[in-house]
Amino acid sequence: MSKLIGNAIVGQSGGPTCVINQSLVGVIEEHFNHGCIETLYGARHGSAGILKEDFVDLSALAVKNGNVDMEYLNKLAYTPSAALGSTRDKPDEEYCKKVFEVFQKHNIRYFFYAGGNDSSDTARIIRDMGVKSGYDLKVFHIPKTVDNDLCGIDHCPGFGSAAKFVAQAIMGDNQDSRSLPGIKIDVIMGRHAGFLTAAAALARQNPGDGPHLVYVPERNVSMEQFISDVKAAKAKYGRCLVAVSEGIHDENGTPWAQRMAENVEKDAHGNIQLSGSGALGDFLIGQLKKAMPGERMRADTFGYLQRSFAGIVSEVDATEARECGRLAVKWACTGERASGSVSFKRISSAPYRIEYYCNDLENVAAKTKYLPDEFINEAGNNITDAFIEYALPLVGELPQMGFIAG
Amino acid sequence: MSKLIGNAIVGQSGGPTCVINQSLVGVIEEHFNHGCIETLYGARHGSAGILKEDFVDLSALAVKNGNVDMEYLNKLAYTPSAALGSTRDKPDEEYCKKVFEVFQKHNIRYFFYAGGNDSSDTARIIRDMGVKSGYDLKVFHIPKTVDNDLCGIDHCPGFGSAAKFVAQAIMGDNQDSRSLPGIKIDVIMGRHAGFLTAAAALARQNPGDGPHLVYVPERNVSMEQFISDVKAAKAKYGRCLVAVSEGIHDENGTPWAQRMAENVEKDAHGNIQLSGSGALGDFLIGQLKKAMPGERMRADTFGYLQRSFAGIVSEVDATEARECGRLAVKWACTGERASGSVSFKRISSAPYRIEYYCNDLENVAAKTKYLPDEFINEAGNNITDAFIEYALPLVGELPQMGFIAG
Repeated sequence: MSKLIGNAIVGQSGGPTCVINQSLVGVIEEHFNHGCIETLYGARHGSAGILKEDFVDLSALAVKNGNVDMEYLNKLAYTPSAALGSTRDKPDEEYCKKVFEVFQKHNIRYFFYAGGNDSSDTARIIRDMGVKSGYDLKVFHIPKTVDNDLCGIDHCPGFGSAAKFVAQAIMGDNQDSRSLPGIKIDVIMGRHAGFLTAAAALARQNPGDGPHLVYVPERNVSMEQFISDVKAAKAKYGRCLVAVSEGIHDENGTPWAQRMAENVEKDAHGNIQLSGSGALGDFLIGQLKKAMPGERMRADTFGYLQRSFAGIVSEVDATEARECGRLAVKWACTGERASGSVSFKRISSAPYRIEYYCNDLENVAAKTKYLPDEFINEAGNNITDAFIEYALPLVGELPQMGFIAG
Repeated sequence: MSKLIGNAIVGQSGGPTCVINQSLVGVIEEHFNHGCIETLYGARHGSAGILKEDFVDLSALAVKNGNVDMEYLNKLAYTPSAALGSTRDKPDEEYCKKVFEVFQKHNIRYFFYAGGNDSSDTARIIRDMGVKSGYDLKVFHIPKTVDNDLCGIDHCPGFGSAAKFVAQAIMGDNQDSRSLPGIKIDVIMGRHAGFLTAAAALARQNPGDGPHLVYVPERNVSMEQFISDVKAAKAKYGRCLVAVSEGIHDENGTPWAQRMAENVEKDAHGNIQLSGSGALGDFLIGQLKKAMPGERMRADTFGYLQRSFAGIVSEVDATEARECGRLAVKWACTGERASGSVSFKRISSAPYRIEYYCNDLENVAAKTKYLPDEFINEAGNNITDAFIEYALPLVGELPQMGFIAG
């Protein structure tokens, strides 16, 4: 096979993570090893920047006095969120056609796209257009999402660091709730998959530690059941710390957030906006207050902190995200495949070891992975030890909490 | 002066911090150096635990195989929140009389109380009772609060670590908002004093970095002004990141949270509870949405994470909190004063140096310090460099954010 020579574009898409810049830096540093890439462009705000031809010359940016500026790149790698800018655009065929025209105009022969399942779908559509029109183009998807819901990969780059944040937040909040007891609800990201909420269970270290209840979108829960669970935990522990996915469903499978929004719009004549992120936690507290009057109750919503906090990163996650960026370039420049999604399987948990492989875009595109049954307890209100075993190697070292017994 | 021999009690009160256990450990380790303290008891949940005689024998707990168990103590010191439990009780004379009876019953001759201005007031009342009844009692207050609002002290133990959390959260959120631009509001603790919200300004490192606006309780702001400020910042930066104290006031000096609660109760017929912590952020977003339709807008409320997060601690703060605990015991056991609040002045900011001194309880009790005028800009919507100079040494090392210019 003769070398495909031309320019490359890298883009970042979807909700940011704390290590998506590690993947970006992996792409940047690896492209210097492959002469087939003439210039590596960064697209500002993903596909949106491609349409607007809003590019940064990353080949030039990363070089200082004739050398690759590793100090700059390493600092960039440890910066949370998408340094090139991200986008919420979900390109269809029409949109991708325009992207493809820009590629042809700039002789783009390599396309690296870091994102979730929507982004891998974008990559797939563009790849197919190349094949159809006989335009040689290599397309590689680099996995990223705090939701951990991509198929075919043991876990997603971005998840470990977000899980570490959630674990440390719950760890501290558990101490706070022990010191001033009451009912505490923490709302955690995850509209469809409960992995990140499940990470709250990593916080448990000492007897009686919360979270005492964990609700994920994979299980329905009625308000009656929720209230009854909280009452039982309160009776047992003298307090109750609850971790709740933003995507939890009621007994009919309707998201609680949706039901709540309907009710409130009717009641409040449009004066109160409930799309703000504290709404679900406040709603649940409101329901509990009616059932348990006089109790001290609080809700926190972790919001964007859990995906973009500066200074909390899992080193395992950082290393894997960087390697995914590097492999995308390496496979594109030296491998036999014209497209794929960088993926890995777990070989063992203790010692922790993974093995990288190239997955088909079709196996990732627009598909969602859910929390397996074995990670959720029978009652559907807590997380099992099997999940801890799965997730603990991904977050790296956690702080150790002291304790005054009795 | 002959030695006062007897037992001691240490308690923790008010909202927890990440270093109040450093102070507790400071008290524990120092008491072993003073034979005048026979047994050091820990009161569970502060004054409430004293009334119930709910004590832990800390002299015994901290010893393992005949030696002080420093491994246990160091782990405890780095555990956020109050390990003995805290209380929201605000004891009056009647309450303190009962506390005093318990002290007499258990021959308590030393009382160490870690807390804010209410706790120092409790300490003052009890000290006065001792003097009045001729019962020899040494009473020392150990300062603690994330609000940084105690008088006579350069800054409060607990503030530096909370400020570090806020700075790192805003640092990450600034990257998030740059990557997916829009209007973002972050609500930060501080009902009366704006120090912790001001710490958001420590996040600025690169050109265009947020927070672009900072609102503190020390300045009033009308909704019209707030909206106009946000519009102007959006026009200038293409996005707007706003840090808001939970205690901000409207143009008449009424807290926005209070006005909002009144409105909502009327509108929603009691169906919506707005005491949950996401409410203020959601309310502000609601107001902005009416004025700037179609904009992407989000609000996060940092909630309890900012005071009890596990794994984010300022080493300066940790060291000072520990020393405050040690000095309280040292001064009580060897000094000439029967009471006081551990305090310190700043000698210089570069290099950072403080000097400890013993303040009168009267100078701290039930008093509040506010953000000085020089720390707030003229327009009342941002924080000055003078604050940065004051606060930077207190948070210790901060992560360095990378940046793709252009």
